[in-house]
Amino acid sequence: MAKPGLPQGMRDFSAETVRKRNFILDTITGVMKLYGYQPLETPAMENLDTLLGKYGEEGDKLIFKVLNNGLHDPKNAAKAKAGFEKLMEGKNTSDLTERALKYDLTIPFARYVAMNSGNLTMPFKRYQVQPVWRADRPQRGRYREFTQCDADVVGSRSLINEVELSLIYHTAFTQLGIPQYRLKINSRKILTALAQKCGGSEKINTLSIAIDKLDKIGLVKVKEELLSRGFTHTQVETATAFLELSGSNEEKLEAVQHLFENNEWAAAGISEIQYVLQHTPGLPVDVDLTLARGLDYYTGIIFEAKAPEEVKIGSIGGGGRYDDLTGLFGLPGITGVGISFGIDRIYDVLEEMNLFPASIQQSVKALLINMGAHEADQAFQYAQALRTAGIACELYPESIKLDKQLRYADKKHIPFAIIIGALEIASKVALVKDLATGHQEKVELTRLVEYFSNK
Amino acid sequence: MAKPGLPQGMRDFSAETVRKRNFILDTITGVMKLYGYQPLETPAMENLDTLLGKYGEEGDKLIFKVLNNGLHDPKNAAKAKAGFEKLMEGKNTSDLTERALKYDLTIPFARYVAMNSGNLTMPFKRYQVQPVWRADRPQRGRYREFTQCDADVVGSRSLINEVELSLIYHTAFTQLGIPQYRLKINSRKILTALAQKCGGSEKINTLSIAIDKLDKIGLVKVKEELLSRGFTHTQVETATAFLELSGSNEEKLEAVQHLFENNEWAAAGISEIQYVLQHTPGLPVDVDLTLARGLDYYTGIIFEAKAPEEVKIGSIGGGGRYDDLTGLFGLPGITGVGISFGIDRIYDVLEEMNLFPASIQQSVKALLINMGAHEADQAFQYAQALRTAGIACELYPESIKLDKQLRYADKKHIPFAIIIGALEIASKVALVKDLATGHQEKVELTRLVEYFSNK
Repeated sequence: MAKPGLPQGMRDFSAETVRKRNFILDTITGVMKLYGYQPLETPAMENLDTLLGKYGEEGDKLIFKVLNNGLHDPKNAAKAKAGFEKLMEGKNTSDLTERALKYDLTIPFARYVAMNSGNLTMPFKRYQVQPVWRADRPQRGRYREFTQCDADVVGSRSLINEVELSLIYHTAFTQLGIPQYRLKINSRKILTALAQKCGGSEKINTLSIAIDKLDKIGLVKVKEELLSRGFTHTQVETATAFLELSGSNEEKLEAVQHLFENNEWAAAGISEIQYVLQHTPGLPVDVDLTLARGLDYYTGIIFEAKAPEEVKIGSIGGGGRYDDLTGLFGLPGITGVGISFGIDRIYDVLEEMNLFPASIQQSVKALLINMGAHEADQAFQYAQALRTAGIACELYPESIKLDKQLRYADKKHIPFAIIIGALEIASKVALVKDLATGHQEKVELTRLVEYFSNK
Repeated sequence: MAKPGLPQGMRDFSAETVRKRNFILDTITGVMKLYGYQPLETPAMENLDTLLGKYGEEGDKLIFKVLNNGLHDPKNAAKAKAGFEKLMEGKNTSDLTERALKYDLTIPFARYVAMNSGNLTMPFKRYQVQPVWRADRPQRGRYREFTQCDADVVGSRSLINEVELSLIYHTAFTQLGIPQYRLKINSRKILTALAQKCGGSEKINTLSIAIDKLDKIGLVKVKEELLSRGFTHTQVETATAFLELSGSNEEKLEAVQHLFENNEWAAAGISEIQYVLQHTPGLPVDVDLTLARGLDYYTGIIFEAKAPEEVKIGSIGGGGRYDDLTGLFGLPGITGVGISFGIDRIYDVLEEMNLFPASIQQSVKALLINMGAHEADQAFQYAQALRTAGIACELYPESIKLDKQLRYADKKHIPFAIIIGALEIASKVALVKDLATGHQEKVELTRLVEYFSNK
C-alpha cells in the first residue's frame, strides 16, 4: 500500500493553524463589514473560457484544468481525441477540460458582476475570502492552494472609496497588532504622464511591468529592460529621474508637478493622491513613485501594504482602481477599486513577531475527569449543564488513569480539570484543578456553572 | 464574446445566501466546539490514488480529476499518450491526472489521521466544514459542489461519544429552530445478527444496501432485490418479519431480543442502543430497525436525522460508528464514530419553514447621506466615529439625489439614514431617520455614537 501523502504545494491545516488563520480572516472581514462590504462566494470551478486569456500567457499555463467526465464514452471519444491532439500541440481546449479551478477572485467577481448586473445594488461593495489554485512551482511561502481575501467596490468613481479602503487596511493591521506596516500609494495616471514623456501613453504597461521589478532586480536591470523594450536612452533617463525623486510625500508630489508641468494626467493623479492623504491623517501612507503594480487593468490610485521592515516579508497586500472590470464579459464601463490581503504572508508576519493572542487557542474551558462508569454518569450531567450555559467542556470518554487524562487536557490547552469521584458525589462538591498553577479548590456541585461563568 | 456563465451544478452565493449559510454553519460548529471538537481543513485536491477505490465503482466515475500541467512538454508526452489510451479504455490512470478534487470529507480525514497518527492527541475529535465535488447529474437539491459538515472522534470506543453526538444533533437543530426533527437510531450489530439468520455475517453489506432503499422503493422491491441477490424465500421472509417489527422503542428492542435469542451481536447492539436512549432523555430518538445506511464501513450504532414531516425533505444528517477508518492507509485498528449535517437540505428546511432570523441580514446600521463634498467630509468624521465604536455604517460615496441614496439603504436592508447637511452642521445636530417607520429625530452630533450604541 502506498504511503498516504499530499499533492505538492498543498497543506492540511490543524486546529491550531485554522484558529490562527481564522483570527486573521475574522479580523479583516470584521473591518470590511464595518464599512458596508458584503460577502460573496463563487464556485471553485469556472468554465475554462471564463479564465483563459485573463492572466497572460504565463498565467494560462498555471491554471489547473479539470478533466471532463465520461470521455471514454463512445459518443465523446472523437471530441476527446481532438482535444488530446490540441493539448499535445500545447493549445488550450475545452474538448478535454471544460472547467478549471479559479486562479484568483477578481475574474470570477467580474464574471459575477457581468452576469448579475441587472440585480446588483450599485455601488456594489463585496468582500470575498476563498481559496484559489495555481500550478506554480511550490517554494517557501508559495503554495498551489492559497486563500485570497479581497474587497472591491464597483459602480462608484468617488475617491471616498480609496480613502475607506486605506482605512480598512489601517484598522485591520492595527487590530492584528501590526501598526508598523506602511501603505505605499501611487497613481497610474502619473505613470501615464511618464509614459507620454517616454514615447506615448500606450507604453504605460511595458513601463509599469519594468518598474514593478525595481524592488527585485534593482535600477540598473530595470534600465536594461527598458532599453531592450525599445525605449531610447533619453527616455530611460527621464524614467530614471522620475524614479529617483525623493523627499517627503509633499516634496515628491511637488517634484512630479514640476517634472510634468501642464500634463493633465499628472495633475489628476497628484490631486487624487492629495485627496487620499488629506483624508487619512495619522496613517502611515508613503507616496512611492516606484510603485507600479504589474497588472494592466489598473488605471488610477494604486496601493501596496508593506510588512514591518524587521520581518523582511515585503508586500502583505495590494490593490487599486480599474476602469473596466467587466468589459471582457460584455459589460463595459464598470469602474471600481479593490484591495487584497496576503493571508499567508500576514500569517508569517504574526508568527515571526509573536503576535497571535494565546487566547485564540483556548477553546475548551474544562476537562471532566472520568472516574468510572457510575461517576461519569454524574459528571456527564454537569458537563451538560456547563454546555447549556455556553461553556465548552469535555468529559473524558474512558476511565483511564488520571495522569493520562490530565495529559490529554494539557495537549489540548484545556486550563481546568474537574474531578467528580465517589467522594465528591457524596459530599456534593467537585474538585477543580487549575492545570497551569496546580491550585485546587472545592466547588459545590450546584455552583459549578456559576464558578466557570466567571472564569 | 461568449455570455458569461457558470459550470453546470455550480452556484454563486450572494450576500443574503452566504449569511443564511453562515447562520447554519456557525450554529452547528458552535455546538461542536461546546463538546471539544476542533477544526481541521484539508486541501481541495488529493492524490488520485488516495481517492480511487474508496467510493465503489460508481463513486470512482464521479470523482473530478485534475489534468496534469505541462503534458505537451516533450519529456512528458509519452506518459501523456499512455495515460490518454488508458483513459479511452475507461481505465483510471494518474499518468494524465495525478490529482483529483475531494469527494467527501471522510477519506481525506482518514488520510490525515494515518499521516499524522504519531502527533495526534487521542481521542482525536475534529470537525470539518468544506466543499466537496461530485460529477453527479445536477438536479433539484443536488449540486456538483456542495459543503459537507462533519464531526468525528477517533481513538475511543466509549458510547459517551455516541451520546454526545446525539446531543450535538439535538442542540444544533434546536438552536436552528427545528426541534421537530427526529433522530433515527439502529445498530449494524443487530443487522449482523439478521445477516447471520439469513445465510451468514458476510451478507451484512448486501442486506444493508437493499434495506437502505426501503424508503425509496418500498418493501416489495426490496424483497425482489434480496431474492435476486441470492437470498432464499425463507431468508427474505425472516428479513421481512424483522423489518416489520413495530411499537415503541422498548417494544421494538424486546422484539429484536426475542427474534435473535442468544445471538451475541444482537445482544450487544440492543444494549448499546439502550445506553444511548438512557443517556438522552427528552430527545426525539426513534429506534428504526429499517435504518441501514448504505456505506459499508459502519460497524456499530448508526444514526439518521430526519427533517420535520411537513417539509418532505427527508434526511438532514447521518452517521455512525466504524471500526477501521484508516486501515486503507496502512494504520489499522482505529475506531471512531462520526456524524454529518446535510447543509443544503437544512437550508431548504429553514427556508420552507421560514426560520431564518431576519436579523442576520442586517449588517449595516446606518447610511450617512452624502449632501455634497463639504458636508460629506463632516459626515465622514462621524462615520469613522461610529465604526471605531464597532457600529457598521456607510457614507454614500456620491452626492446624488436623496431618494436614490435612500433606495440604496432600502435594498441593503439598512435601517437608519443619517442626514448631516449644511443646516445640521450649523446647528450641530444630525437628522436620523428610521427607514422602516419613517420616524425622524434630531440627535446632537456629539451624541450620535451613544445613540446608535443603544439601537
